Amino acid sequence: MNQPELNTLIKNDRIDHFLLIRKIELRSTKSGNDFLSTELGDKSTSMNANIWEGFSEIAARGKVGDVVKVTGTIEEYQGSLQIRVASMRLALEKDNIRARDFLPISKRNPEEMKKEFTQKIKSIFDKQLKKLLLEIFNETRFELFCTAPAGKSWHHAYIHGLLEHTLEIIKVCELMCEFHPELNRDLLISGAMLHDIGKIEELSFDSAFEYTDKGKLVGHIVIASNLVRDEIKKIPGFPTELGNNLIHLILSHQGKLEHASPVVPKTVEAIALYQADELSAKVNAYKNAIEAELKPDSNWTKFIHLADTDLHKFNLRENSEDNTKKSLFD
Amino acid sequence: MNQPELNTLIKNDRIDHFLLIRKIELRSTKSGNDFLSTELGDKSTSMNANIWEGFSEIAARGKVGDVVKVTGTIEEYQGSLQIRVASMRLALEKDNIRARDFLPISKRNPEEMKKEFTQKIKSIFDKQLKKLLLEIFNETRFELFCTAPAGKSWHHAYIHGLLEHTLEIIKVCELMCEFHPELNRDLLISGAMLHDIGKIEELSFDSAFEYTDKGKLVGHIVIASNLVRDEIKKIPGFPTELGNNLIHLILSHQGKLEHASPVVPKTVEAIALYQADELSAKVNAYKNAIEAELKPDSNWTKFIHLADTDLHKFNLRENSEDNTKKSLFD
Amino acid sequence: MNQPELNTLIKNDRIDHFLLIRKIELRSTKSGNDFLSTELGDKSTSMNANIWEGFSEIAARGKVGDVVKVTGTIEEYQGSLQIRVASMRLALEKDNIRARDFLPISKRNPEEMKKEFTQKIKSIFDKQLKKLLLEIFNETRFELFCTAPAGKSWHHAYIHGLLEHTLEIIKVCELMCEFHPELNRDLLISGAMLHDIGKIEELSFDSAFEYTDKGKLVGHIVIASNLVRDEIKKIPGFPTELGNNLIHLILSHQGKLEHASPVVPKTVEAIALYQADELSAKVNAYKNAIEAELKPDSNWTKFIHLADTDLHKFNLRENSEDNTKKSLFD
Amino acid sequence: MNQPELNTLIKNDRIDHFLLIRKIELRSTKSGNDFLSTELGDKSTSMNANIWEGFSEIAARGKVGDVVKVTGTIEEYQGSLQIRVASMRLALEKDNIRARDFLPISKRNPEEMKKEFTQKIKSIFDKQLKKLLLEIFNETRFELFCTAPAGKSWHHAYIHGLLEHTLEIIKVCELMCEFHPELNRDLLISGAMLHDIGKIEELSFDSAFEYTDKGKLVGHIVIASNLVRDEIKKIPGFPTELGNNLIHLILSHQGKLEHASPVVPKTVEAIALYQADELSAKVNAYKNAIEAELKPDSNWTKFIHLADTDLHKFNLRENSEDNTKKSLFD
Amino acid sequence: MNQPELNTLIKNDRIDHFLLIRKIELRSTKSGNDFLSTELGDKSTSMNANIWEGFSEIAARGKVGDVVKVTGTIEEYQGSLQIRVASMRLALEKDNIRARDFLPISKRNPEEMKKEFTQKIKSIFDKQLKKLLLEIFNETRFELFCTAPAGKSWHHAYIHGLLEHTLEIIKVCELMCEFHPELNRDLLISGAMLHDIGKIEELSFDSAFEYTDKGKLVGHIVIASNLVRDEIKKIPGFPTELGNNLIHLILSHQGKLEHASPVVPKTVEAIALYQADELSAKVNAYKNAIEAELKPDSNWTKFIHLADTDLHKFNLRENSEDNTKKSLFD
Amino acid sequence: MNQPELNTLIKNDRIDHFLLIRKIELRSTKSGNDFLSTELGDKSTSMNANIWEGFSEIAARGKVGDVVKVTGTIEEYQGSLQIRVASMRLALEKDNIRARDFLPISKRNPEEMKKEFTQKIKSIFDKQLKKLLLEIFNETRFELFCTAPAGKSWHHAYIHGLLEHTLEIIKVCELMCEFHPELNRDLLISGAMLHDIGKIEELSFDSAFEYTDKGKLVGHIVIASNLVRDEIKKIPGFPTELGNNLIHLILSHQGKLEHASPVVPKTVEAIALYQADELSAKVNAYKNAIEAELKPDSNWTKFIHLADTDLHKFNLRENSEDNTKKSLFD
Repeated sequence: MNQPELNTLIKNDRIDHFLLIRKIELRSTKSGNDFLSTELGDKSTSMNANIWEGFSEIAARGKVGDVVKVTGTIEEYQGSLQIRVASMRLALEKDNIRARDFLPISKRNPEEMKKEFTQKIKSIFDKQLKKLLLEIFNETRFELFCTAPAGKSWHHAYIHGLLEHTLEIIKVCELMCEFHPELNRDLLISGAMLHDIGKIEELSFDSAFEYTDKGKLVGHIVIASNLVRDEIKKIPGFPTELGNNLIHLILSHQGKLEHASPVVPKTVEAIALYQADELSAKVNAYKNAIEAELKPDSNWTKFIHLADTDLHKFNLRENSEDNTKKSLFD
Repeated sequence: MNQPELNTLIKNDRIDHFLLIRKIELRSTKSGNDFLSTELGDKSTSMNANIWEGFSEIAARGKVGDVVKVTGTIEEYQGSLQIRVASMRLALEKDNIRARDFLPISKRNPEEMKKEFTQKIKSIFDKQLKKLLLEIFNETRFELFCTAPAGKSWHHAYIHGLLEHTLEIIKVCELMCEFHPELNRDLLISGAMLHDIGKIEELSFDSAFEYTDKGKLVGHIVIASNLVRDEIKKIPGFPTELGNNLIHLILSHQGKLEHASPVVPKTVEAIALYQADELSAKVNAYKNAIEAELKPDSNWTKFIHLADTDLHKFNLRENSEDNTKKSLFD
Repeated sequence: MNQPELNTLIKNDRIDHFLLIRKIELRSTKSGNDFLSTELGDKSTSMNANIWEGFSEIAARGKVGDVVKVTGTIEEYQGSLQIRVASMRLALEKDNIRARDFLPISKRNPEEMKKEFTQKIKSIFDKQLKKLLLEIFNETRFELFCTAPAGKSWHHAYIHGLLEHTLEIIKVCELMCEFHPELNRDLLISGAMLHDIGKIEELSFDSAFEYTDKGKLVGHIVIASNLVRDEIKKIPGFPTELGNNLIHLILSHQGKLEHASPVVPKTVEAIALYQADELSAKVNAYKNAIEAELKPDSNWTKFIHLADTDLHKFNLRENSEDNTKKSLFD
Repeated sequence: MNQPELNTLIKNDRIDHFLLIRKIELRSTKSGNDFLSTELGDKSTSMNANIWEGFSEIAARGKVGDVVKVTGTIEEYQGSLQIRVASMRLALEKDNIRARDFLPISKRNPEEMKKEFTQKIKSIFDKQLKKLLLEIFNETRFELFCTAPAGKSWHHAYIHGLLEHTLEIIKVCELMCEFHPELNRDLLISGAMLHDIGKIEELSFDSAFEYTDKGKLVGHIVIASNLVRDEIKKIPGFPTELGNNLIHLILSHQGKLEHASPVVPKTVEAIALYQADELSAKVNAYKNAIEAELKPDSNWTKFIHLADTDLHKFNLRENSEDNTKKSLFD
Repeated sequence: MNQPELNTLIKNDRIDHFLLIRKIELRSTKSGNDFLSTELGDKSTSMNANIWEGFSEIAARGKVGDVVKVTGTIEEYQGSLQIRVASMRLALEKDNIRARDFLPISKRNPEEMKKEFTQKIKSIFDKQLKKLLLEIFNETRFELFCTAPAGKSWHHAYIHGLLEHTLEIIKVCELMCEFHPELNRDLLISGAMLHDIGKIEELSFDSAFEYTDKGKLVGHIVIASNLVRDEIKKIPGFPTELGNNLIHLILSHQGKLEHASPVVPKTVEAIALYQADELSAKVNAYKNAIEAELKPDSNWTKFIHLADTDLHKFNLRENSEDNTKKSLFD
Repeated sequence: MNQPELNTLIKNDRIDHFLLIRKIELRSTKSGNDFLSTELGDKSTSMNANIWEGFSEIAARGKVGDVVKVTGTIEEYQGSLQIRVASMRLALEKDNIRARDFLPISKRNPEEMKKEFTQKIKSIFDKQLKKLLLEIFNETRFELFCTAPAGKSWHHAYIHGLLEHTLEIIKVCELMCEFHPELNRDLLISGAMLHDIGKIEELSFDSAFEYTDKGKLVGHIVIASNLVRDEIKKIPGFPTELGNNLIHLILSHQGKLEHASPVVPKTVEAIALYQADELSAKVNAYKNAIEAELKPDSNWTKFIHLADTDLHKFNLRENSEDNTKKSLFD
């Protein structure tokens, strides 16, 4: 797929792109004319695109998550760029296009991250834990794990996000093991690797990031604890207390009951994992929110609900000299 | 075991009883004499019993949950009854005494309750749910389920309490099905039966009601969902969505995240189960707290933390005539 | 009034109906033409209806809660049905139409419910409580009580809803009395009957469900306690403590201070009433929300604020075979 | 009663006093001797007093709230003063002693406060409100109102405290009326006068400050609203909306649902009354807590739970010179 | 500037006004025509004004906070008044117009308030506190202080609002000193004067009320404590403990950690200041919200989020006779 | 000071030690004999020590924080070790003993930590930030900073704890900079270094860890922001926005208003610092709590209030074989 990313285009640019349908709705004007209102995007951004005629096939068969081939031009409407559509058709099998390629994606190299993760498994000393990890991260599941996002929209909400997030936590936990040799490294790193694995069933990520029915009814925490328990039961002689402590890490990793953990952290490894998870998640989330939501001509975003504040981008290099003049109070 | 219950004895009564050790501690007086301070009880109540000599064997080998044979008399100290010990020895094998017989026990007939519960299983129409219930409530597990308390101290905290509590919920849920034929009765009643089954692993109840390590690290909600899922996997063709909904009932039955449910109720069956559980638990808990904690010469208990108030016992028959005289405001 | 219910009509159906005005506003198009924008409904549902000419009388005199006679056809606009108006006039006295007949109404038979309720009063054993109930539920007030909704929009929010809700609670409380003979049945059932009677003054329900000024400034809890106290004072020799306990049931029936109860439940009867109320209200509310808010082609509703989640409709019969195929985790 | 106040006595002083029993309990020493443990006090403070012999009559008949005649000496035990009892007998009718005279009492002159309050009633312009106030504050009720404390222990918890507290609020409200002529002064001042009148039934204050049964089951807010409503009903033509607004002031004066107000303030008068009440109550409570709980040789109290902090007494005159030496940061 | 206030104009009135731009946006109709959508206002109110041609200069150079000269007529659209623009140009230097004159302004006389405030400084007895106040309220800073609003939108959100609010608090605190001679008046009144002075840097108020960057990153509480500390350090021999207590008043004046005070009130002066601030702020806020948000033909406002309720305007004189007819319950 | 640490002694050991007075109180027995009750300790632990005679000088002059010379033996009382005192005297000047040497102390080498910290300052690239840090960490202040504990009792509550805690946070922040090159490393690391520097004035740590008056009235957050601001003002041309952002890091580092931060984190650097602080503090606190509070013969501590749970120590090596036997559910 050889096409410039949507967020690089400017007004009056020609467009001849495959794009993913993010919203689609048949609407009428007050005067009674029908038109098809869509939002189309690639991994870089999305734009509105209204079609005023010749949309009957798309209207009938197209749905969110489908890919379309669009020609037209970029125009501006009420301060935003949108697509003036010349033609639009659904992608065909022979176009050989995957919807997933239009989803946002990690900026880190996935092969490198996979290699890192595999090394981390090898670094586990305890034989039974290592065996357990190898069973859980079998080929099929590892592929899913390496593809999944870590969330629907808040943090690491992109393809390979779960892998990227997990690697960050592992490294933070390793640093904590340096500070505190009393920590059981094998247990803690195994817990870090497994804590969010339930997300590969909680979320669907083929053509959009959505919660599955199982995700809503059961949740990734219990999904993960079930999976780990299944595999533990297949390993003869796996110590019961080790199993309970590993599952405790998974269950308690959101730190508080009101964050949907059914137990709070009760071991030093559990509190380390929870705080490392918070650190990785929050920094990623704030960084992305600041990038995405900065108001025009401002160093401030709009109000971000999950942060319960507006956010500020500090750019030292932009400090002009007159920033240093004394204010009344300084 | 043919002995009068402890709460029927009064000052100066002779005592020749098997009793359970609830607390035991070797202490010294300021003047340096050692004595053994114990709290002994049967299913009706507990009393303090200090031993001033001849306690070396008990002090060395006795522990909480053991049964002792005690002789002596009942005396009063600072307004409470206690045991003046003449002799005390640990129960022997040949005494044929079970510690569990000294734990508080439901006032309802256990055989009758078991029969009721078995009838309820038979009333399930859906074949796969009924098969699942029969597998889960196999002989061994049913025995445990029928013996366990429903809690450590707050509600239905006595032998057979889990069975009694579960039956109450089932009946409340059946009433809700009468009001709302839209409810899926098979699903709801199955959920009611299974919602607290994790308590047979969360609590130990051989000689005291205590949380197990697994109970603290994993919790009865996830223990139950694991058990149900294991048995579902053994039943070929068990519908996935039915399984997810049944597990949802178990996971959400405490109603709120901050009450340790990892998901909140999202179906009408789930909200019915949660509210029925609350109703059964709270009424039992308040009734027992009022019975146990009423202050002397008062219709009020001390402050009850779990209710966040003191509680009142209303006794219509005690209204003397002068209660009806008009107050200033009436 | 012999006309098909609005929710049975489909596109292109002719309409010749009396309907209730739920919203009415005179608006202009950008091009400066005035039109009358209304929402019209009967007890089954509501639809938008814009009138482009000949609306001067309605615009001048019509208001929310009035009934109009409308002719026209059903048409579709942006995925919803609406009314294309041919003619519209205000209902005349001789049309003999009551606005209340257009409000949502309980599916249960009101006469049957009244009979049940009257039987429950007769079942009260205590003479003074029974006398009190008969005075309170005198003819006028009983009629109002049997007509009122139990709420503005959340649960039992339809004509006869208060009666239906009260009967449910009475039956749940009777079941609790079976479990706990210690409960004072006369007190509890009387409290159940009276707990929400303040709603007949808190809400108006002639042509819409709205809070009255008194409802907002005083609230149904204090309104009810005032009413009960007035009638108690008329009964010579009514026991003071019985009166205080009955009023306590009314005041505490919302269970928590933050739910606007000025005292929390302090008796076992009070906690039973609160939990029975919750059970009846929540199950009704969730059932109705699921019915009303299910998204098209989905088993999930939109996000429901009062439940703080989206809700799920489980329909066993819809499980197709491929629901049983094993997922990765099952 | 001509005796020095208890808090003026020091070690080795002789004592020949009438004192109020605040606690009384028959206890035994470890060695089996009985003694009577009491706490005795007057309006200034309380002290422990143990009696080792000759206490049989007191033990049998004395109870909290009774007055006793005590002789003995003041001694020190574990850093606190206590009474070494030589003799103790219950007060006799002929002693002509009232238990209430031993309760803490306002430092303000009660007659002066009554006069002020009566003037404030006269200042009400609206005839019906003034009539209502005169009916409510009839001779009997006014006497009770002028005697009652405003609380059990937190603020204005002394005889005449309710009157003192109410006068403070009235003056604060008058100041607010100066700032905001839009406020309805008659309504606001009447609401201020009546807001806590329910406390004369919520609390008993003959020989101790305790909640009554009615106080616990109904609460002073609803007691007051009932009283006001009764008297309003006796006044022909009293405007309904005025009545609802006055009762709204009473019901909402604790400002938040979680503080037991069944409605929150919805008028500008209601918010003024709530905030004036908070101001009067908190300043009085903090002042008294600082006086009563200052740690020895410290300007800090112990931790005060209702303030959720320890409190500080600032005394400018105690600043020694070396307070002014510069710290590292200053 | 001699022009009638905007809120005195009615439909069809001619307009020839300077007005402040409150919102400005270039938009297009569906049919592709551009127009300029603005909201224009003076200190009394704001109105929408769309311009369909001849707006290129304004669109290019005009921004929020600029003043424009507008001619045209008042017209009505969807129930609201708006301006039909005949001509619009940006104000010129020679027009000699200040944006600030278009901001809402206190109804109290500013010179009178300044005089009052100056008198209050003179009333401080302690020499060092008085010196400190005179330094802080030097000419430049006093001018700013007397101009600033006390908030962005909730209470005293108008020019001179900070001065008006501070004077109210001073008077309430003086009243508290009358009730409680134990209060340190000098400390308390100084704290009242300084508590919100940080707002002159937290907010900008030249042409709109907005938070500054420093206001968002540091906040008015810490800004004020910094300012006071700077000036204290310039006064030799200023008592350390006095300084700490004064800064404590500033830091704790929002009363609760969750209201952004970094310490809670720990002295009786601190609790008095906090409660006086609440009283002044809330009454002003409710009064203004009721004025601004009353629904047409109603004594109720829309739902006010900061009050968490709708608000009610009580107008005794509007009570018609039929308000006094008895309702069922009265 | 060459004496075995207190926690290495066992029953019957001789003692001839300098120890710190942690508690001291003159008490009497019931029989009227005075004795001196003390708690004495060194950096390893504390023990009770009662003195029955010859304590008059200590009782008169000794106070918490003084060092005494004690001889005697270790004995056991009610399961705990205590000191049977033979002689006790206050330490003399010539003994050359510092109270601080008896306080708990970091296990890390302080010189090594100082060197690390100095290196981190050197690693700051921005000249003005580096200059600021060098000024703040001047010789006197650096010495204090390197000695202070990071808290009174919860985390890093030992000599050098503040330095140890700060170094941990710096390293975690450096790791975050590796993950996110967008982070401003100079700003973040400077903020980490300074965030808790206010603790050197908030706490006293000469002979015990206690809050100072300034600590309670102002708090370490505002103390630190004041200090940093003072030093910034001395550096000509220090960029205003850089200063505001650095102070924002300090003010927001406790992450939430209810944790006493007057502003919440609004930049990505601020959220990183907050989460790194939480991680370092919680893991240290849990580790120490588990070490200190483990119940005898148990892997569980008592209930830890700040963690709101009991805590568990997992020791893989203790897993006996029978831990692996299958439970009913596994």
